[in-house]
Amino acid sequence: MKLIRFGSEGQEKPGLQLEDKRIDVSAFGEDFNEKFFETNGLERLEDWLKTNQSNCPNVDDAVRLGSPIGRPSKLVCVGLNYAKHAEETNAKIPSEPVLFFKSTTAIVGPNDNVIIPKNSVKTDWEVELAIVIGKKASYISVEEADDHIAGYVLHNDVSERAFQIEREGQWCKGKGCDTFAPLGPFMATKDEIKDANNLNLWLDVNGERLQDSSTSDFIFNIQHCVSYISQFMTLLPGDVISTGTPFGVGLGFQPPRYLKPGDVMRLGIEGLGVQEQTAVAYK
Amino acid sequence: MKLIRFGSEGQEKPGLQLEDKRIDVSAFGEDFNEKFFETNGLERLEDWLKTNQSNCPNVDDAVRLGSPIGRPSKLVCVGLNYAKHAEETNAKIPSEPVLFFKSTTAIVGPNDNVIIPKNSVKTDWEVELAIVIGKKASYISVEEADDHIAGYVLHNDVSERAFQIEREGQWCKGKGCDTFAPLGPFMATKDEIKDANNLNLWLDVNGERLQDSSTSDFIFNIQHCVSYISQFMTLLPGDVISTGTPFGVGLGFQPPRYLKPGDVMRLGIEGLGVQEQTAVAYK
Repeated sequence: MKLIRFGSEGQEKPGLQLEDKRIDVSAFGEDFNEKFFETNGLERLEDWLKTNQSNCPNVDDAVRLGSPIGRPSKLVCVGLNYAKHAEETNAKIPSEPVLFFKSTTAIVGPNDNVIIPKNSVKTDWEVELAIVIGKKASYISVEEADDHIAGYVLHNDVSERAFQIEREGQWCKGKGCDTFAPLGPFMATKDEIKDANNLNLWLDVNGERLQDSSTSDFIFNIQHCVSYISQFMTLLPGDVISTGTPFGVGLGFQPPRYLKPGDVMRLGIEGLGVQEQTAVAYK
Repeated sequence: MKLIRFGSEGQEKPGLQLEDKRIDVSAFGEDFNEKFFETNGLERLEDWLKTNQSNCPNVDDAVRLGSPIGRPSKLVCVGLNYAKHAEETNAKIPSEPVLFFKSTTAIVGPNDNVIIPKNSVKTDWEVELAIVIGKKASYISVEEADDHIAGYVLHNDVSERAFQIEREGQWCKGKGCDTFAPLGPFMATKDEIKDANNLNLWLDVNGERLQDSSTSDFIFNIQHCVSYISQFMTLLPGDVISTGTPFGVGLGFQPPRYLKPGDVMRLGIEGLGVQEQTAVAYK
């Protein structure tokens, strides 16, 4: 299944992306959030669809998409998880995953505007594969990791480099600004993705391809990341883990290139759809 | 008012700490969470008490206390906010607040056991004054900060120093382990605390006083911290900001001192009550 949430910001309703159309599954009566995943929601929804899908109204293509999942308890990110990206940022290859949090208030829909924060001069892009946790995970092994994954979603880990790097330690200042975490267009359930460790991903700015790589270049693969994070904190159903970005961010250019109002980011991952955001100035 | 939440873990009910007893205010029908603070809950509760307080059942002193507020969207911490503590950790005095996140899954009640994580050898204590946000805050000035504060709560920012410092960048690995954020015993509303920038705070381990300071030693005061964080992310009602710890953590001793199973931490802040946790091994 491909889960979507649609409608105006903060008022999103649950739906599904089918092959040829979107349908509204509000009649199922649940949002795609922690409780849904915790209580076997994916299976229950699939059962419900068997008798109810034909009565689900269509959702017009013009309707806004929100994040395909409700606000998670946390959005954990893996940094520097592609060797060539670590190089471009002048960081050494990490010996174990680097972790940081993005504020969940940064989450927006896949095609919402990205707001360049006040006083920002270094807002940058990062196409990433994100994992949605399906089952509470604490001290799980690499072998058990897949059992704890509900699905996958495309994420633009928008980052303000001056806030992140030049403002006294810890990256979170440059990672959690409002609109800095577009998620979607849909969450693909695990069964839809043959091998999440081998997916092409790319990002264009104003039509120019700047990131173009594959998750097969991960330093730490999906299972390793999930297991590793669960050694340090309990992951809850609906939590999101973003797995790092490949080579080609603005920071890596000589001289660096950052977003200006009006710039358009378009990004995608094989099997996980496409996002498009316009950068706008804070008003 | 002094808000409490009591009962078994995950099933906490709202209550109040009065001068001489605790009362159950479940009949008010709301938990102390984002929605409560967002919808003027403190004022509404105060009104409700005028006619209903005498009917509220007492809560026995033996009943467990949970965190006095429901799970926030985020738990943001200020690092190195006391000069003498920065020195003891061999860090320079920051020119602006250092920020990091604790995972909200780390939040527990004020007297719950603190679990020393698997593979931990450096679990440490940090008494801190935490702020509870009352009103959505984004790009607010220092002058406006007080309007956005609902109240204050005692926090032990338990920290695993090896996870925090020796495991590849970013502090969050050592800050968000389960049970690493005891909050309580109560949240005092703002009006209960005369000057949050001038409160004594202390922490004992096994009866020995190891931290003993005052928030008057803050490098960045309450109002500065709230305003500053709101430049980088939107703070939501019910969000928690922890303001840093003074001199006297285990890491600062020569040689360092860390928690062993059976060790008892007792900590307090003037006007915000006392917590007591026993460190236990992970099972």
